[in-house]
Amino acid sequence: MEHIFDTVAIVGPGLIGGSIGLGIRRRSLAAHVVGIGRRASSLRKARQAGAADSTTTDLEAGTRSAELVVLATPVNTFGELTKRLARCMKVGALVTEVGSTKEHVVEAISRALQARNDLAFIPTHPMAGSEKRGPENATHDLFEGSRCIFTPVSGTPPGATERLKRLWEALGADVHFMTPREHDRLVARISHLPHIAASALINTIEEHEGVYAGGGLIDTTRVASGEPNLWKTICQSNPHGILEALDSFSGSLATAREFLAGGDFESLTAWLEEAKKKRDGILEMRKKPRSSLQQLEED
Amino acid sequence: MEHIFDTVAIVGPGLIGGSIGLGIRRRSLAAHVVGIGRRASSLRKARQAGAADSTTTDLEAGTRSAELVVLATPVNTFGELTKRLARCMKVGALVTEVGSTKEHVVEAISRALQARNDLAFIPTHPMAGSEKRGPENATHDLFEGSRCIFTPVSGTPPGATERLKRLWEALGADVHFMTPREHDRLVARISHLPHIAASALINTIEEHEGVYAGGGLIDTTRVASGEPNLWKTICQSNPHGILEALDSFSGSLATAREFLAGGDFESLTAWLEEAKKKRDGILEMRKKPRSSLQQLEED
Repeated sequence: MEHIFDTVAIVGPGLIGGSIGLGIRRRSLAAHVVGIGRRASSLRKARQAGAADSTTTDLEAGTRSAELVVLATPVNTFGELTKRLARCMKVGALVTEVGSTKEHVVEAISRALQARNDLAFIPTHPMAGSEKRGPENATHDLFEGSRCIFTPVSGTPPGATERLKRLWEALGADVHFMTPREHDRLVARISHLPHIAASALINTIEEHEGVYAGGGLIDTTRVASGEPNLWKTICQSNPHGILEALDSFSGSLATAREFLAGGDFESLTAWLEEAKKKRDGILEMRKKPRSSLQQLEED
Repeated sequence: MEHIFDTVAIVGPGLIGGSIGLGIRRRSLAAHVVGIGRRASSLRKARQAGAADSTTTDLEAGTRSAELVVLATPVNTFGELTKRLARCMKVGALVTEVGSTKEHVVEAISRALQARNDLAFIPTHPMAGSEKRGPENATHDLFEGSRCIFTPVSGTPPGATERLKRLWEALGADVHFMTPREHDRLVARISHLPHIAASALINTIEEHEGVYAGGGLIDTTRVASGEPNLWKTICQSNPHGILEALDSFSGSLATAREFLAGGDFESLTAWLEEAKKKRDGILEMRKKPRSSLQQLEED
């Protein structure tokens, strides 16, 4: 395949950033991939994994000649990093980030890039990942069959968006467009809310009672074993989306409670059936190859 | 091992009943195991699985000479079945059931056995199982390393309880005692509540949004794909326990909501950390072999 970009700089070549680097290199989508990080040991792992052609701990040196800079560090670092990028990136280059929330991120990055209206900024969220972290777990096909959400900001040249879309499609993802707010509301419901619910389920029981628990409780609460500080950052960057999701969830629980308290077990069963049918439908949908998914969306 | 019982009759030799039959036969804990069911096809499967020495669709014929009758059918069938057992079981025999709720069950069975105070009745709940159902999925070691909860009723001869306890211990389970109410409150929190929460999570999203979902949502809601009619029966037999668990859960969610709405991310992180620590502790506890668990409880 012809290169889509000349030099691509990946800031934070961990699981996601490293998989982007691996995918780009395996498919020759760029002439050169630079990995940029703070720790020499992580960068060594990224090189060993094949996630980058070269690495550096110097942000300015690593991004100066890049046509595309990908931010793949925690979302709360994006503002500071972009302020520094604004001082060194070359004219007409493209900045993107792969953070898991968008409204706060778009605001922080747009503010930092105010003086550089030659730079295009395209926020994205690849909906793929793993419990595992670090470049040693990166794979070139992490995004095959996945979705990548773009939440474009006004004033972005259509050519820049089209070019980044081609890159993500070449990595195997379907690109979907929505606004930052739509994105944040969506991920609150499908990702952040389940985390809060799982933690609340665990906080409802006593530790010693766990010895009686079956696989149901263990699976339902798996995500509650995630890193609290990572989740703190996510909650900080999407409080409104999560509050809205929590309120919908509480509404759904109140419905079930009403059926139970009123002895209306027929309605409760219909409510359980609705959930089962929807979940089984979601599993079916996820099994389908990408081409059929596109078909579904076009129908 | 010497027989603990002469003839054991298992009413409903499915996954749980069949595994009890297999476990008893493998360890020679009874002289004879009779499997009793409504459908000849299921009984054939039970015989093929080795869950019974003989089978019959005739409840009276199958239980008349049994020293122990195990009810392993859905909890809402126990009342009617026990009324019939009261007319045919031999003097001094033992009735037990393995239902997943206790208060309603104990009430229904005690009422049905009122005229037969020679029969001992011991309610139990083996905390083991699987998503799979039917005798074809039964295994002789299903209860190895598990817990079996006994919720004894007043007036039961200590010798009968001791004898059934020996049977469960021979099947590999630790026997724990609690009241029917304590049991129902416990299972509401560790099993019924996670099911309601998983269904409510699914009912909070739109089906088409599921295409963006990661493994987190899928795992958190796995139990919501369970059989709605089975769950209806469970909810019908434990509404008070589930309502109490739902209210505790809502309280825990309200705590998280308050931290989020007030921007108190330090307290939110502490709350997430509490859940992670507790869940990780539960996983550790479940990994331990039975002897260390007993040790823990004795400490």
